Order: sequence, then structure tokens, then C-alpha cells
Amino acid sequence: MLSTMQDVPLTISRILRHGSTVHGRSQVTTWTGEGAPGPHRRTFAEIGDRAAQLAHALRDELGVARDDRVGTLMWNNAEHVEAYFAVPSMGAVLHTLNLRLPAEQLVWIVNHAADRVILVNGSLLPLLAPLLPRLEPVEHIVVVGPGDTSLLEGCRPAVHEYEALLAGRPATYEWPELDERDAAAMCYTSGTTGEPKGVVYSHRSIYLHAMQVNMTQSMGLTDADTTLPVVPMFHVNAWGLPHATFMTGVGMLMPDRFLQPGPLAEMIEAERPTHAAAVPTIWQGLLAELADKPRDISSLKTVTIGGSACPEAMMRAFEEEHGVEVCHAWGMTETSPLGTVSHPPGGLTPEEEWPYRVSQGRFPASVEARLAAPDGGFAPHDGESPGELEVRGPWIAGAYFGGAGAEPVRPEDKFSPDGWLRTGDVGVITADGYLTLTDRAKDVIKSGGEWISSVELENALMAHEAVAEAAVVAVPDDKWGERPLATVVLKEDAGDVTYEDLRAFLGERVARWQLPERWALIESVPKTSVGKFDKKVLRSQYASGDLDVTHVTASGGGPARPAR
Amino acid sequence: MLSTMQDVPLTISRILRHGSTVHGRSQVTTWTGEGAPGPHRRTFAEIGDRAAQLAHALRDELGVARDDRVGTLMWNNAEHVEAYFAVPSMGAVLHTLNLRLPAEQLVWIVNHAADRVILVNGSLLPLLAPLLPRLEPVEHIVVVGPGDTSLLEGCRPAVHEYEALLAGRPATYEWPELDERDAAAMCYTSGTTGEPKGVVYSHRSIYLHAMQVNMTQSMGLTDADTTLPVVPMFHVNAWGLPHATFMTGVGMLMPDRFLQPGPLAEMIEAERPTHAAAVPTIWQGLLAELADKPRDISSLKTVTIGGSACPEAMMRAFEEEHGVEVCHAWGMTETSPLGTVSHPPGGLTPEEEWPYRVSQGRFPASVEARLAAPDGGFAPHDGESPGELEVRGPWIAGAYFGGAGAEPVRPEDKFSPDGWLRTGDVGVITADGYLTLTDRAKDVIKSGGEWISSVELENALMAHEAVAEAAVVAVPDDKWGERPLATVVLKEDAGDVTYEDLRAFLGERVARWQLPERWALIESVPKTSVGKFDKKVLRSQYASGDLDVTHVTASGGGPARPAR
Repeated sequence: MLSTMQDVPLTISRILRHGSTVHGRSQVTTWTGEGAPGPHRRTFAEIGDRAAQLAHALRDELGVARDDRVGTLMWNNAEHVEAYFAVPSMGAVLHTLNLRLPAEQLVWIVNHAADRVILVNGSLLPLLAPLLPRLEPVEHIVVVGPGDTSLLEGCRPAVHEYEALLAGRPATYEWPELDERDAAAMCYTSGTTGEPKGVVYSHRSIYLHAMQVNMTQSMGLTDADTTLPVVPMFHVNAWGLPHATFMTGVGMLMPDRFLQPGPLAEMIEAERPTHAAAVPTIWQGLLAELADKPRDISSLKTVTIGGSACPEAMMRAFEEEHGVEVCHAWGMTETSPLGTVSHPPGGLTPEEEWPYRVSQGRFPASVEARLAAPDGGFAPHDGESPGELEVRGPWIAGAYFGGAGAEPVRPEDKFSPDGWLRTGDVGVITADGYLTLTDRAKDVIKSGGEWISSVELENALMAHEAVAEAAVVAVPDDKWGERPLATVVLKEDAGDVTYEDLRAFLGERVARWQLPERWALIESVPKTSVGKFDKKVLRSQYASGDLDVTHVTASGGGPARPAR
Repeated sequence: MLSTMQDVPLTISRILRHGSTVHGRSQVTTWTGEGAPGPHRRTFAEIGDRAAQLAHALRDELGVARDDRVGTLMWNNAEHVEAYFAVPSMGAVLHTLNLRLPAEQLVWIVNHAADRVILVNGSLLPLLAPLLPRLEPVEHIVVVGPGDTSLLEGCRPAVHEYEALLAGRPATYEWPELDERDAAAMCYTSGTTGEPKGVVYSHRSIYLHAMQVNMTQSMGLTDADTTLPVVPMFHVNAWGLPHATFMTGVGMLMPDRFLQPGPLAEMIEAERPTHAAAVPTIWQGLLAELADKPRDISSLKTVTIGGSACPEAMMRAFEEEHGVEVCHAWGMTETSPLGTVSHPPGGLTPEEEWPYRVSQGRFPASVEARLAAPDGGFAPHDGESPGELEVRGPWIAGAYFGGAGAEPVRPEDKFSPDGWLRTGDVGVITADGYLTLTDRAKDVIKSGGEWISSVELENALMAHEAVAEAAVVAVPDDKWGERPLATVVLKEDAGDVTYEDLRAFLGERVARWQLPERWALIESVPKTSVGKFDKKVLRSQYASGDLDVTHVTASGGGPARPAR
């Protein structure tokens, strides 16, 4: 039986229309750097006008049609917000380009998405210009803000200047009524292995996600707030903040390219945002900066931290030293990104709240979660049984972009047969829905139908006074399938510690069957470009016999083998 | 171009699954009255189990199939919450019956909806039993809680006892995956004229509305809160609170049949809810009760008031005397009901906030509003130009239930040709989206392409020291289409006031062209059963010549006519 309700699609043009009228006085403030004439301010109403002008320009001057991809290589600023709304609202697809990617990946991504237009901040022309000869689908370059346009001389695509392109065009646009499941925006994941994978967000997924961001148990800001999205707009739609703020009139302070601790402290002091969102390394830098050169950041009430786990010590420092509540969130490009947020349950004392606050957080009603267990079933949500996290929901990816004209692709290692996203994260979920992640699935040791957490073994090993660093990886084992290999970097003053000592030390901290039999001393743990342990290298060193592996077993009973 | 996002329907079973697991410890507390053993408590987890048992019983024992209507004639209590989730989640349609309706209307509504089952609180059997012979589609009566079941002896439908029906059935149910546009629940409007009209909510509309209720700028509660929905569950889904709370774990305090000021004060003092929702008359009664017999209601932080406008004096009294912030909301059965909420914009002083707080409030992003102007176009949102409010959005009705097997109906006076809901309310909207209602459309005087607010003329007239009551109605006019007729009740000690005096008094307060030419003295203003001015009666008295009408014009110049 059909309902009698109106069938109104959830589209980004609705958010734009609302934000630019009902919240027309709210502002996007773009930081322009120290010594500049001061920050640039634009109201939501002006952004609405200019988004209409941009849409006219893209359609009438550049020939952008339905479903065409429009790339952006831009910092967080008001013009990027204009593109965020204009491009999807006119029926085209916004493709945010990650300016931190290696050139080869950028080229691959632009060609794979078949971007017809790229909007680029003038300051990023030195990055884009050398790639242009290889960006075959690109027909138009639109330069936003000052930059060395001589770099574009003689390039194949037509070059336009953003303000000149908008000038004189109508400030209203008859936004088409789209299907809410139409593509609105896309973003590629930059996995360390394999080709980048494109996630194509729909109007519906972005709209629902923005409602969730505005729910009390997510970020829940009001138009009395101003948020500072330090998280780049090319990272998962800046966590949905531009869309969420246009729904509720929350002001935005945009850092543009000034992402260093000094300018961040300066803009917080000057513009007094109440909320900010960024990855932990940004906050670590800001804390150090503030210790060095105190600034008034008392306007900040809450910061949302995501991207990777935030150490409890840092969360406490923020609260105790600066009165800022840190709220943990977990998500990924494939989850829009809002998966969990670590608001503690009601009715607890501040100290009781900490175990919840340092977890990844709780799932909202729209995100279902299950744990694929080592035995092929699903682990109970008891806070103890680990599994690979799989999620399902209206803003969760169910496939990747297959390329222009191609069908979406659903790699088996990324999606379950019944369509859930395999996150690649291993962890536990409590009965009341709090997620704690322990490992990446690829780093878990699958030993005889049980999983051994490499991270847990590493942390336990690194607690030993003689150990500087330790990395544990899975290696093939005839009997158990996989077993852990412990690779250890000893401190300079480690003394006469033996493998047996280390194994006994571990034995007091983890279950007996998890104890590694294979041990190797290494000079240092190989690391990726972003400083994470590069376990691929260790596994391949083991496979090729490049590690000096000692076997140590409980029943050994022989002489203690020296670690060094 | 299709997105790569999962296509997951927004259904009530998702809300139930989430609430009964992630928020399984949250509680529904049902008040059982003074002197009773104490309130009854049930966790969301228990409600989830019992909803599954109820669904099994309805399907296996009562034969309820997809789309069958299951009526409820119940107070606000935990069992009603169970039905709220079980019935739609199994694919049937929950039909909440308004126990305050006249018997004739109840009979009409049950037959029109073709309810196969009615769940009835035992305390309401005296109301239901006499109607049963005329409720032809009803096959099963399920009695919930104690009551005089002898009243059902010999009745045609089969009679069941709720707890016996649930006992021993499985506490899990394989909820079907429904289309989110399927019917979930229905509710009839009880207009004073014409037949009741059925609004059929979809899973989608209820889900989106619940997300909106949880947004900061609506009610925005967390699981540290407990809400007291005094608004009945047969009034527009208790304003969406049962669905919203299961999304976020907010506790519910349910008043059952104890809706008088005394028990309400008692349950607030005892159970300490932080939020409550009701119509103004309830709060007026509570304020009087508290003045008479003080109680500790300090737990209440906010009350949401809707259903009709709340006087500023009452809002201030609540705040000043009890520290409770009153938040105004506007909506109707056709709007699910959340239309506007009167949160003021950010950055104002408390006194600056008042004009916003006494307005009907601001529209959320999902509800578009326009004002159908007297000239046939749409009035600007300038805070001054009136029009009939029309709304559009994913939880706004676009038609009424046409009856079992019939197509939905779209009466022209209720829906615009392009599908917007005509609310029947006249008002203005400010540039920043705040709505102020002034009249019901049927009470507005359409004079020469302009509208005259009868309410404004009445309020101005009633400010005259000689006037006890005044009602202004539209009467036909050859030249202007309609003109105002002022009917006046004078105070006992009114003295020698003349119509010219009254007209001159009005002339200082409203535009000259709005001044009535037709005046009549009456003994009292006829009223409806709920105490509102019954203007139908006045219009028909005028039409039949039963009023003693005096014509007074500005250019008259003759002797002043005595009003009495």
C-alpha cells in the first residue's frame, strides 16, 4: 500500500536553496594569511548567487552537461564551497582531487574519472601544469584566485579565470529536479596498494549524511556555532561539513592553504570558531605550537578528530590545558565518512566516560555493523570477540566507479556477497554499539581459525624496557595456516636480553597460543611515506630469507638464545 | 550516472533494530497513577523482543498480512510503543485512533480505513464496546491491560488478551525488507467540517522526520535525556518522539491516561524528565497546578509546545518561575508534524530572541515554504506580505487516503496543482525563514485583491475599553468581493460608545481601506465545542438577515450612531 506522502527527492539543490535563503546571513570566512588585508567573508546568500553564476558558466560557456565530471584541485575556501553546490545541483558530478597524491596517481585518477573541467586554485598551478599534457579528457581549466598563469601558456585545454567566468551571469538558476540516487560527487581512495578506487556519492547519500552530521549525537552544531574544517574538502567532502552547515546555518572558517600550526592558532584566536575537525597530527602540531607560543583558543568547545585513532593523552591535554572537548570519529572514504562518533552514553561521571571516549564510538541508526569472524560466521557484539568490521547503510559505498561508461565494480575483498562494505578494519563491538578497532585485517594473523592481533603483540612487546620498536607480521605455517613473526629493534642499552625473556614477558600479557615462535632482530622497522609500519616489506624479507629468524618454543628447554 | 552507494531503504525496522540493541538499556517508563505499585519500566531491548512477539502473534494467530490496517485505541504507554514498531516493521499499517473523537467519527474512520484488528487499552473498553456492532471490517480485538472485558461478551470480533497473545512466541522476527515508500502508519485529521481525512505516512517519511527531530535545531535530545510525550500517540505519531528516541536512546516517560495537571506534576517530580511535549492548554493547567501546589519540576530543561500558538506570557512564566525553556513548534497531521521550530538565530541577547521565540519558528532544510498571495502569485518572504502557507517536503502529505482499494484523493482546496500542501493557515515569513501565522485562510477577508486579517481587526477592537469581545467575518460585497463585518459584544459598563468611536479607534491601528463598514452588536460570540469563535454561525446569521447591521462609512458625516 502506498503512502500519501509527497515524493520529494533529497537533492543538494534543496540544501543550497535552504542555506542561501533561510541562513543567508551565515558566513564562509576564508583565511588569507598573515599580513594579508584580512580574511575574506562571503555570506551563504552570496554563495547561492555565485553558485548559480558558476552553473550558468559551466553549462553555457564550457558546455558541461548532465553527469559530466568537474574536477576541483583546491584548498578549503569559499569558491570551493560554490563548486560543491553548483556542480551537483546542475546535474554534473563534482570530483574532488587530492592535491597530496603523487603525480602519477593524480594523472591516473583524472583520466579514469574522465574529468572534462578542472577548477584549480592559482597557488596549485605548479602542481597541475606539468601534468596537463597527460590529462586527456580535460578540456577546460578554470583558475581560481591568484597564481602564475604563465605556467599554462601553450597548454591544450582552454584556460579561464574564475571571476571573469562568473561576471555578469544570472544569480539564479533553474536547478533541475534530479533523482536522489543520481551521482553528485566522487572521491578516490588512495590505497597504498593497487589502483585508486572511486567512490561515487549520490544526492541522497550526501543529504542523509548531512542530516546525521547535524544530529545531536554526531556533531550537532547550531547557527550560533562556527566550524573550522581543517580536514580538506578533497577528503570525503570535508566530512560532510559544507552540506551540514548549509542545512543549519553554522558558519564556516576556511583555512585555505594555511594548514600549519602557527596560522591555525592565529585564525582560531582571530575568528573564534566553536568547533573544528581534523586528523590527529594537526592537533598534535597545534598543541605543540600553543605550548611554544600561547594563543587564545578559548572559543573552541569541541574538536572532532578522525582519520586515525587519537591518543588518550592528547585528548586529555586538549581538555585540561585548553578546555576543548575532543570527540573521536571513525569513517573512511567509502562511508561518507560518518561511521561512528565517540559520544559516551548518558548518565556517567567524566572518568567513567573515558573508555567510551577513546573508543572509535557508537554507530548511528542508519549504519548497521557486523563483525566477520575468523570462523566464517559473525562475532557477537560482546566487546571481546574480534572480527572484520562490515557496514551497511544509505551513505555506505556498495561498489566502486568502474570508469566512464563502465559498470561499477565490486571487488570481493571489499564487498561481501550480500553487499556489505568490508572495511578492512578488525575490532570488537560492545553490546551497546561502541566500536574499538585493533588491527587492519591484512595485519591480523589467522592462526588455526583464531585471530591474533599483531597490534596487541607489538604493544605488549614495546612495553618491555629493552625494546625500542617491534613489528609483528603473519607468516605461513604448515600446521596453523599462519603464525606470528616477531621482529624486534632493541634499545642501545638493552643489555643481555634473550628471546626467551621477551617471550616470557609476552606470555604474561597475551594468551599462550598467541606467543610467536619465530623471532628476528632488525635494525629498524621499515616505514611507509606517512610513517606507518610497512609490513609488506617485512613479509617479503621473510619470504626471501633475508631475515635471521630464530625459533623459540615454550618446550624448548635448551639454553636461552641471546637476542643480540 | 548512478552513484556507487548502497541502496538501503529507510524503514522502521532499522530504527527498531538500532534502538533495541545499541540503545537496549534505555527505558520506556509508563506511569501507573498515584497509589499504584509504581511506574512500570521496560527497556528498549525488552520492547524489541516484545515487538517481535507481537508481530508473530499478529501474523500467525490473527492472520495479519502485508498492508492490513491494525488500529490502536490506546494511551501513551510501553505497549503502544511496541505496536508502533511491530506493525509497520512486519509490513502492516498502524492506524492510531483518536479516542477523543465523537463516536460517529470513530465509526466512520475505522470503517474507512478497514481496520482488521484493534488493539485497545482495557480502560477504553467502555468507549469501544458500544461501537463494535458497527465496525464491520474489525475481526479481532486485542485487549491491552486491565479492563472490564465483560463489555465484550457476545461481540462479533474475536477477543484476545495482549499478554496471553505474546506469551511464548519468539523474541526475534525476520523483518521483511520493505520499500521505504510503503505505508507504515496512518492518522485521520479531525476537521470541524467535512469527513475526516486520512494521512498515510511512509517508512521513509517517518524515518526522515525522526532524523529531523533529533537534529539540534529541532528537539535535539541525547541519551542523557528523558522525554515526556504528553502529546498523545494518536496525534501525529506523538510528534515523532517514539521513532526519534529509538534512534538516539532518549528515555521516554509515558503518562498513560494520567493527563491531568496533578498527576503530570507528580510524575515530573518523581521521574525527572528533561523534556516534554504538549499543547498549550496542558501547560496552562500545569502552571496553575504548580502555583497551587508547588512541586519540583527542576529536571525539565525544555518543553516543546505545538498544536496552537502559545502566549508569550505563558512562555515567560515557565522560564521565570520554573527555569524551563519553552520552544514553539508548528505543524499539523499532514506535516508529520514537524514544520517549524522557534529556535532563535545565534548571536542574540535573550531579549532580542523573544520576537523569534514567539513566532511559529523556522523551517528545516527539508521543508520548503511559500505564501500563496491574494493576487494569485506568491508573496515575498519579507516579514510583511501575507499569504496562505503552502509547504513541500519528504514528510509532507501530497494526498489523502481514498479508502481501502481506492486511489488517494487530492482535493483542490488542500493541494496545489503542483502538489504542495495548502495548510489553510495565513501568515508571513521573514527573509530568514521565520513563520508568523495570523489567520486561518477561511477567516481572511478577500477584499479587492488584498487580504484583511480578521484576527488583527478583532485584536485591535478588543483593545478598546468598551469592548468585551469582537469577531470579524467576511461578508459578500458587490464592489470588493468581500468586506469585513465587525460584530461586537460591549462590556456592561461600556457607556455611550458609538460605532463611529469604534471605527475611529480602529482607524488609528489598521490601514484605512481595512476599516469595516458593517457593524452589528451581539450578545456573545458563538463558540465551537472547544471554545473557538464559530464564524460559520455569524456568517449564516448575516446571510439570513438575523443580525441588526448598521452601515458606517468614513464619509458619513451624519449623526454618530449609538452602538447601544
